[in-house]
Amino acid sequence: MGIQITSGYTPFTTETVVQFLEYHKLLDRTAPVHVKEIGDGNLNYVFHVQHKKTGQSWIVKQALPYAKVVGESWPLTLDRSRIESEALKQAHALVPDFSPIVYLHDSEKAATVMEDLSTYTILRKGLIEGRIYPELARNVGTYLAHTLFFTSDYGLGSANKKELAKRFSNPDLCGITESLVFSDPFYNAESNAFTEELRADVESLWEDDDFLTEVASLKHSFLTKGEALIHGDLHTGSLFVTESSTKIIDPEFAFYGPAGFDIGAFIANIALSILSQEAHRSEEEKEGYLAYLFGVTTEVWNVFESTFRSLWADHLSEDNRYSRGYLDALLQSIFVDSIGFSGCKIIRRTIGLAHVEEIETITDPKVKLAVEKKALTLGKKLILDRKNITSIEQYIKAIKEVI
Amino acid sequence: MGIQITSGYTPFTTETVVQFLEYHKLLDRTAPVHVKEIGDGNLNYVFHVQHKKTGQSWIVKQALPYAKVVGESWPLTLDRSRIESEALKQAHALVPDFSPIVYLHDSEKAATVMEDLSTYTILRKGLIEGRIYPELARNVGTYLAHTLFFTSDYGLGSANKKELAKRFSNPDLCGITESLVFSDPFYNAESNAFTEELRADVESLWEDDDFLTEVASLKHSFLTKGEALIHGDLHTGSLFVTESSTKIIDPEFAFYGPAGFDIGAFIANIALSILSQEAHRSEEEKEGYLAYLFGVTTEVWNVFESTFRSLWADHLSEDNRYSRGYLDALLQSIFVDSIGFSGCKIIRRTIGLAHVEEIETITDPKVKLAVEKKALTLGKKLILDRKNITSIEQYIKAIKEVI
Repeated sequence: MGIQITSGYTPFTTETVVQFLEYHKLLDRTAPVHVKEIGDGNLNYVFHVQHKKTGQSWIVKQALPYAKVVGESWPLTLDRSRIESEALKQAHALVPDFSPIVYLHDSEKAATVMEDLSTYTILRKGLIEGRIYPELARNVGTYLAHTLFFTSDYGLGSANKKELAKRFSNPDLCGITESLVFSDPFYNAESNAFTEELRADVESLWEDDDFLTEVASLKHSFLTKGEALIHGDLHTGSLFVTESSTKIIDPEFAFYGPAGFDIGAFIANIALSILSQEAHRSEEEKEGYLAYLFGVTTEVWNVFESTFRSLWADHLSEDNRYSRGYLDALLQSIFVDSIGFSGCKIIRRTIGLAHVEEIETITDPKVKLAVEKKALTLGKKLILDRKNITSIEQYIKAIKEVI
Repeated sequence: MGIQITSGYTPFTTETVVQFLEYHKLLDRTAPVHVKEIGDGNLNYVFHVQHKKTGQSWIVKQALPYAKVVGESWPLTLDRSRIESEALKQAHALVPDFSPIVYLHDSEKAATVMEDLSTYTILRKGLIEGRIYPELARNVGTYLAHTLFFTSDYGLGSANKKELAKRFSNPDLCGITESLVFSDPFYNAESNAFTEELRADVESLWEDDDFLTEVASLKHSFLTKGEALIHGDLHTGSLFVTESSTKIIDPEFAFYGPAGFDIGAFIANIALSILSQEAHRSEEEKEGYLAYLFGVTTEVWNVFESTFRSLWADHLSEDNRYSRGYLDALLQSIFVDSIGFSGCKIIRRTIGLAHVEEIETITDPKVKLAVEKKALTLGKKLILDRKNITSIEQYIKAIKEVI
C-alpha cells in the first residue's frame, strides 16, 4: 500500500510535510529526517527538510490561503504557488545560475519542493551587516537582461509571448502592488504607517497634484504595459547571496508587466540601503560602503544594458527590421520607467504598509526621521524628474543630492 | 429523430447552413427559406437566410480556416470566430444600439448567427457615394467611449480586466496587424503594393531612421499596451450605417490593446476619404463634403472625450483617488497614440497589402499618384509630430496642410 496523504488542501505540519515528500518519492518512507519550519508565516510556510544520513535537503514552500498583514487576515489565492513555481522554472531555464532548482510543484497542496539554499544569506541582511558581494551587480544585471529580453516580444515572438502572458495572469498579487505601491502611500489610507513627525512632508506629497498625476501615470504603466514576464517584487529580500553566487527567489508576484519595474525595485532598495548608511556605520566605514552601493547601482544598469544589447544582436525573434535608433529608444524608455518605479518603491517603503529593516532598526528617532525625509525627497524627485534623468550617472547624482 | 448535422468543422453550403439553423431550432425543419452567400469569401462565409413566409432573417458568419490574400492561402485560426462572437456580445452589453445582436455561436462550426443588417450600407461605400450620416460621429464617439472605458482598469477594475484579457488573447490576428500595419510598409516587404512612380517617396520613408524609430515605438505600444478591449480593425468597412443608425461589426481582431488604436483607425480612414475627394467630386460638391468629413473627425473625438469624462465621473471602478490632472493626462496620452496610429494606418493603406476603395478607384493615374503622395506626407507627419499635435483642431490642420 502506497503512502496516503490527505486529499485536498491542508496546511502542512512538520509531520505531514515529510509524508508529502514520501508520497512524491523524494524520500524513502523510513528515512530519518530533520524538519524545521523556517518561514515568517505571513504568506507561506517554508519547511527545511534534511535526510539525517545522506545530508540531502529540500525546501518545501507552501502557500497559505491568506496574508497576515497588520494583524489582519487578507484572503489570497493559492494559485500564486503555481505562478511562483512556474516563474522559477522559467527563470531557471533562462538563467540557471541565478535561480533555485524546482524539483516539483503540487497544485492541490499549493506546495513547491525546491533547492535548499540555506547556506545563502538574504541580501538585505548582508547589506545591513556591511558585506561586499563582488558578483552581485553583474549577476543581477545579467539575470534582468536575460529574463526581460527572452520573455519580451523581441526575444520570444509576439504569439508565444501572448500564450505565456495568459499563464501568468496574476490579478490577486498585482492587486496588492497596485494598492501598496501605487495607491495607498499617495492618500490618507489606513494601511499607511509613518511617524507623526513626518506628517507635514507626507501631506505635502498628497497635496501636490502634478506629482500625483505622475504617480498615476506610473500606476497606469503597471496596469497596462505587458512588456516582459517580470519578477514583480525584486527587493533585496528576494535575493539569496554568497560571496560568489546570487539566487533570485520568491517570484510569486510574477506577471507580464513593465520591464522597468524589476530594475526600479532593485535599485530603489539599494538606494534605501544607501540612505540608511548614515545610521549604521562610522564615518570611515561609510565612505567605502557607499562607494560599493553606488557601484552596485551603476553596474547593475550597465550590465543589464550591455547584455540586453548583445541578446538583441544575437537572438531577436524575427529578422531585425528595426531602425538603428530603436534599441536606444527602447532602452531609454525602460530606463525612465525604472527611475519612476524606483521613486514609487522608495516612498512606499517609507510611509506605506511594509517598511525596510535598514531604516526600521535605526534607534535614534532624529536620525531615522532625517533618513525618512531624505527618502521622500528622493522618491518625489525621481518620479517628477524621471524623463530628465537620462543616465545611471544622473540617477546616482540625484541620490547624492539628498544624502 | 432530430436534425443531423455533420460533426466537426466543415464549411457550410447553402443547404447545410439551413440544416445548421434547424439544428439550433432557429428554423422549423420544413420552413421555406431564401439562402444566399453574400461574403467576399476571403476570410469568412457570410450567409443571408430568410424565412419566405415570416420574413424573419439571420446572418450566419462562418470563419474559414485560411485567409486568401494576394491569391495565396494563409492558415488562420478558427478561434477568431469565438473571439468575434464574444466581442460582439461584449459590445452589445455595453452599447446595444451600435452592435448587432448575436443569437448564438457554435464553436465547432466556427459560426455565429446574428442580426440581419442587410438594410444597412457599409460606411465606406456610403462615403464614396458622398452620403451624409448625421448621427455617425456621435454614435462612433459614444461607442468608443463606452467600449474603451468599461473594459479598462478604470471601468472594470484590474482583476476583472485581467480575466477578460485572457479570453481575448488573439495572437493570430494581432500577428496580421503587426505585419501589415507596423512592419511590412516600412521596409521592402513582398506584401507591399504601390505604383513605381511612388517608389522614391516610399524609399525616402524607409531610409529615415528617426521616422522608423517612431514607427517601432508605436508597434511596441500595439504589442504591449493592454489598456482596453479594442475592436482592432475599426476602418470604415467595419461600420454598417443608415441615416439614423450605426452598427459596428467584424471585431475578429479584438484584443486588449492601446485605446488609441480604434480611434486612430477610424479617423485615418476618414482622412483617406478626405484625401480622395479631389478625384471623386466637383469643386462645388467637394467643399461641402470635406466640411462634413472634417466635422465627423472633430465630433468623433469630442464626443469620445466628453463621454469618457462623464463615464469616469460616474462609473470609476474604485474610489477616485486620482489627481485632478490625471484624467487630462490619460486622455492626452490616448490622443497622442490615436494620432500616431492614424499615421500608420494611412501609410499602410497607401503602400501596404490592402488599399482602400476610395483611392483604388481613382481612374486618372496622375490624380491617384498625387493623392497617394499626400497620404504618405500626412502619415509621416502624424507619426513624427504626434506629441506636438495636442488637439483635434491641430490634427485637422495637419490634414489641411497636405490637401
